[in-house]
Amino acid sequence: MKIADPKSVPIVLMGFGNVGRAFFRLVHEKKDLCRARYGLDPCFPAVFEVGGALIPAKSFLEPADAPESSVSDLVRNPFWNPAGKLEDVLASHSPGVLVECTPTNLKTGEPGLAHIRKALEMGWHVATASKGPLVVDFKGLKALALDKGVSLKFSGAAAAALPTLDVGLYSLAGTQVSAVEGVLNGTTNFILTRMGEGGSYAAALQEARERGIAEPDPSLDVGGWDTAAKIMLIANAVMGTEFTLADLSVTGITDLSPALLVRAESEGKILKLLGTVRRNEGTYSAGVAPTLLDPSHPLAAVNGTAKGVTFWTDTMGQVTVTGGKSDPRGAAAALLKDIINIFPRD
Amino acid sequence: MKIADPKSVPIVLMGFGNVGRAFFRLVHEKKDLCRARYGLDPCFPAVFEVGGALIPAKSFLEPADAPESSVSDLVRNPFWNPAGKLEDVLASHSPGVLVECTPTNLKTGEPGLAHIRKALEMGWHVATASKGPLVVDFKGLKALALDKGVSLKFSGAAAAALPTLDVGLYSLAGTQVSAVEGVLNGTTNFILTRMGEGGSYAAALQEARERGIAEPDPSLDVGGWDTAAKIMLIANAVMGTEFTLADLSVTGITDLSPALLVRAESEGKILKLLGTVRRNEGTYSAGVAPTLLDPSHPLAAVNGTAKGVTFWTDTMGQVTVTGGKSDPRGAAAALLKDIINIFPRD
Repeated sequence: MKIADPKSVPIVLMGFGNVGRAFFRLVHEKKDLCRARYGLDPCFPAVFEVGGALIPAKSFLEPADAPESSVSDLVRNPFWNPAGKLEDVLASHSPGVLVECTPTNLKTGEPGLAHIRKALEMGWHVATASKGPLVVDFKGLKALALDKGVSLKFSGAAAAALPTLDVGLYSLAGTQVSAVEGVLNGTTNFILTRMGEGGSYAAALQEARERGIAEPDPSLDVGGWDTAAKIMLIANAVMGTEFTLADLSVTGITDLSPALLVRAESEGKILKLLGTVRRNEGTYSAGVAPTLLDPSHPLAAVNGTAKGVTFWTDTMGQVTVTGGKSDPRGAAAALLKDIINIFPRD
Repeated sequence: MKIADPKSVPIVLMGFGNVGRAFFRLVHEKKDLCRARYGLDPCFPAVFEVGGALIPAKSFLEPADAPESSVSDLVRNPFWNPAGKLEDVLASHSPGVLVECTPTNLKTGEPGLAHIRKALEMGWHVATASKGPLVVDFKGLKALALDKGVSLKFSGAAAAALPTLDVGLYSLAGTQVSAVEGVLNGTTNFILTRMGEGGSYAAALQEARERGIAEPDPSLDVGGWDTAAKIMLIANAVMGTEFTLADLSVTGITDLSPALLVRAESEGKILKLLGTVRRNEGTYSAGVAPTLLDPSHPLAAVNGTAKGVTFWTDTMGQVTVTGGKSDPRGAAAALLKDIINIFPRD
């Protein structure tokens, strides 16, 4: 038995917002563990943001090289290069992993889509926390990755630290998944939990804003679109469907029927915003809607900002996974997990 | 993009009891799916049982070659060879996977331990549903597998269709797991669920026997030893501990304190037989005991014969997985899952 030197894994980080910064910090914090337990040595040849990139004169960025607490500080960093080009950086290092953390756009997929295409074309693996590129062109990106013999990983885009894709693809390998149900959005689940306790929608949303749970513009969350994007990505990856967002019937929680709340109360049910995909005689349907769950449903006890997903299979019965931190550090941990799993070991 | 021919994967099956037979059937049922989705072509050069083996004159066994419904019928099978030797079969095929399904012995690990050692030494991967060999010599088997560059998989031995190891090793890669808690035995959980509904221990055990949930001799279950073996395997695999069964403090449910049942009732808690491992300032402790859970605990709603496990981590918070069928088909599906995951693909 011999211990090989750790394998150097260049990481080009796209986006230095909350998740990107948490990821940059986490990788350095976990460097020793990556080397000792997984034989990997992750390092950063560049970090890109709007208008340029941090590109060090030496080989790789150290933690102290990017101490910035906000994107606007980057331009004062000595390594900031407004002329930095992704293509040049990718070409000047042996292929590693492009990590995509730019803001997501569910309609165009940009800017992440262009970054990911470029990286895959140049033989780099990709781990993305951004949903947009996958919502817009999962099929094309997957085919490109397969053609180039590299990995396209996106745990960070499909509920992050909650391992939806790992369980669906790895733990359920060899099964036929007949349905997936998910409580996939922390903001709406927090609001519905408060409403189940007797609060109003407006008060619950206000509290979610004050506690930093809801984004300043929560419309993608409360409108059901964040849940829709996630359940669609899970379905396309695990069940082999080719859904686009337009194929999904999506109802959010902004206009909850009072009758639904009354029924939940009188029938002892629990109201959740549920993303679902079902297979029925070879055809698939997917959607998002406020749904009354029986208290014995495996997702009924997923409360507050927690998330969960249930897979229904032919040979393993139902398998449910819940939990996983929803904060930037949890998303960063999901990205690191994906990178570690790109390089198999025993 | 090109589709390669499926890779032939010889499987030598040890043990043709309930799980072994379910596995043999399942693999044939899933043959097309294995070829199309995973590029793998699993086939059986031999099936071993006490006193011999089915070894076909042609290359591989077809489903109709092993129609036996009980082990005692095997001796009348035309392919039955009382002189069949494992070493000879392993040597006469290119290395594949040895699948270990013989009855488990938590003290000696035999006969599985000898089978697994032999297979690993001869460069075969191993997937085992039997806990005994791992309880007795996990460290030695793991080192041998590493030395030979092959995989040692044991989902089937650590709660089967409930993906405890996948989640701990794959989905939580890069985290530090500080504690694991598990409801890992269906028989005891069924009994405690009934007792929570007001039934007596004796009546619940009787019902479990009548419904085929409890084994004729349920002492390993109700004594807590099945749970102990599983939580120990999870800890040793995921947390890198080197526990033996003797290191665990194990209390089963045969002598439940009436005070515990009264407290559960009066405090609104839920009684579970919990396997636990905890890390505390670099040292680890593990054990099994009847435990009162708060209703908000992620395992509190795991009822009846269902199982579940919760991992507490540094970066992803808690992640809980529940469900997974406990029958022989579920165990067979876990073995097939492990085999598929031995051969990575994208």
